[in-house]
Amino acid sequence: MNLPSWHGGSTYTIECCEKWLFLTTCMGGSGVNSRLESCVLNHETRGVRWKKITLVGVGLLGGSLGMALRKRRLAGSVVGFVRRAASVVECEGLGAVNLATLDLQRAVEGAELIVLCTPIAQMRGLVKQMLPALRRGAIVTDVGSVKGSVVRDLEALVAKAGAHFVGSHPMAGAEKMGVAAARADLFVSAVCVVTPTAKSSPAAVRKVEQLWKSVGSHLLRLSPQAHDELVSRSSHLPHVVAAQLVNLILSPEHSREQGMLCANGFRDTTRIASGSPEMWRDIALANRKNLSQALGTFADGLLDFRRALKSGDGKAVTKFFEQARERRDLWSNAAGSPSPE
Amino acid sequence: MNLPSWHGGSTYTIECCEKWLFLTTCMGGSGVNSRLESCVLNHETRGVRWKKITLVGVGLLGGSLGMALRKRRLAGSVVGFVRRAASVVECEGLGAVNLATLDLQRAVEGAELIVLCTPIAQMRGLVKQMLPALRRGAIVTDVGSVKGSVVRDLEALVAKAGAHFVGSHPMAGAEKMGVAAARADLFVSAVCVVTPTAKSSPAAVRKVEQLWKSVGSHLLRLSPQAHDELVSRSSHLPHVVAAQLVNLILSPEHSREQGMLCANGFRDTTRIASGSPEMWRDIALANRKNLSQALGTFADGLLDFRRALKSGDGKAVTKFFEQARERRDLWSNAAGSPSPE
Repeated sequence: MNLPSWHGGSTYTIECCEKWLFLTTCMGGSGVNSRLESCVLNHETRGVRWKKITLVGVGLLGGSLGMALRKRRLAGSVVGFVRRAASVVECEGLGAVNLATLDLQRAVEGAELIVLCTPIAQMRGLVKQMLPALRRGAIVTDVGSVKGSVVRDLEALVAKAGAHFVGSHPMAGAEKMGVAAARADLFVSAVCVVTPTAKSSPAAVRKVEQLWKSVGSHLLRLSPQAHDELVSRSSHLPHVVAAQLVNLILSPEHSREQGMLCANGFRDTTRIASGSPEMWRDIALANRKNLSQALGTFADGLLDFRRALKSGDGKAVTKFFEQARERRDLWSNAAGSPSPE
Repeated sequence: MNLPSWHGGSTYTIECCEKWLFLTTCMGGSGVNSRLESCVLNHETRGVRWKKITLVGVGLLGGSLGMALRKRRLAGSVVGFVRRAASVVECEGLGAVNLATLDLQRAVEGAELIVLCTPIAQMRGLVKQMLPALRRGAIVTDVGSVKGSVVRDLEALVAKAGAHFVGSHPMAGAEKMGVAAARADLFVSAVCVVTPTAKSSPAAVRKVEQLWKSVGSHLLRLSPQAHDELVSRSSHLPHVVAAQLVNLILSPEHSREQGMLCANGFRDTTRIASGSPEMWRDIALANRKNLSQALGTFADGLLDFRRALKSGDGKAVTKFFEQARERRDLWSNAAGSPSPE
């Protein structure tokens, strides 16, 4: 492997190689830029430490980030903003934060980094409220599943306060919600997308990438628009499909034996249908253009299969299942797959 | 609980209660007939032992059945018919059968029970071949995922030889195939559907039900037609949907980052897309009328959701996700759910 001449040190080279392998395996060979960026990150991550990080919202993602930061001693203090008094006790008790508070201003005061970990529909209102307390030069990021509208809304708002917004999406959700399900290793080996824009401060982008890398994530830099199009297929579409499977199969109009005939295949295929309806409403609406497109293409494909089936076209039916198995096995067997089985 | 007066013995009563609880939970309150039937089964299962059972095909299901029968000492001899010489060694080595053979006639000779564990498309041909060797009064059953055409084909054939065919469908598949994946507990707590017809011998039906009960399955008796309609939704539809998700999401036409953005949700939702294409082709074609109907209803529902999404109807979008969560949680939390999580 040829490394640029300014890349020195043997340990460092090994890290670069690992990262490069991961990227080339998963992305079918990433460009030189990504390779260099990830190498730079490996280098600069060492010794990065934040004085104060504020988590706005301490649920599954916020709580897991707090635990990871504290376990790895990456911050002098992790402060959590929560909505209910009971959450203060719970978050502190579980070790997700050093301090939890119901006071948003106090939570963000003096923080170098603020991570928005609430449902996306609440982010704009909370950022507006915190603006007066925001330190100049502070960095604000988020964990939202949609980036286009979030980045558009928040980038300008945060800039007004002399701070920097950079969007993030760590792909480490689960159908379980709340800080009780949080764990320090949630982000390890997960892919985290960071979505800078032309207006982003390069230093702020680097620091946000360092944050996710330091808790074990693999980084991917995309534009907010490219991110939203890709996740409309890989994440939002499967959620709608799982929910529609449940709605159809477990409809009360079927006989009562129907539920007994739902076995492991049904269970796995619909696991994500147990996610938060409010969260998924917000995500679906925020990404509705891309998601509608994906749903249309998906339904067209299903109806093509149905035509082949009805006409008894065994060849086409076999090809449909064969192609799916091949594509999935290829994905699943990729050495650096972010979701090994 | 009121038990009929001919139900005696305290241990027996406890077993009946457990079964009754299971049935009423899963089926939303089963009728008295089912309750009595299952009680009778609990009673009669004790001490049932077969002299010789033949498994025609020793893959995941056949191998697991052989292991379960042998572990529980339910048969004097378990003989397996296999296609390849290498399988003889493998099946015997893994303890799936006492004896494996490439000779179908020899395999079925003198057997009281023959279980067809091959793909459904091969069953008719194999039964035709074995007819001359079939013992009068022998019982033939199968493990096929479609029952209408299988029962229609095989019932008459087997009757010609003075033997009895009763269809079964133990719902305990997996995307892994082959005897190497077999295990003695595969059928424990799985639902097994038995599908008698008006022509079935009641004694043969009871014996087939005893077989599945004795390896730990929960029984459900349905007509072949009712079975096929129910599984077209609960099992066959999710398979097609999972395959279509993979075909769309991992299509080579998308940018190479697409695979990296497939996380746990995608992984679980599409796990079953790694199943055998040939097996699923046969199942889909054998149940194409019901499956086409289910696919049409499914696509209609998706397109309804898409309309709500496009028009920004937050209420309808929330209801869609809420209903799915409620229905799935209800299913998943059912005390006697055959697929506890």
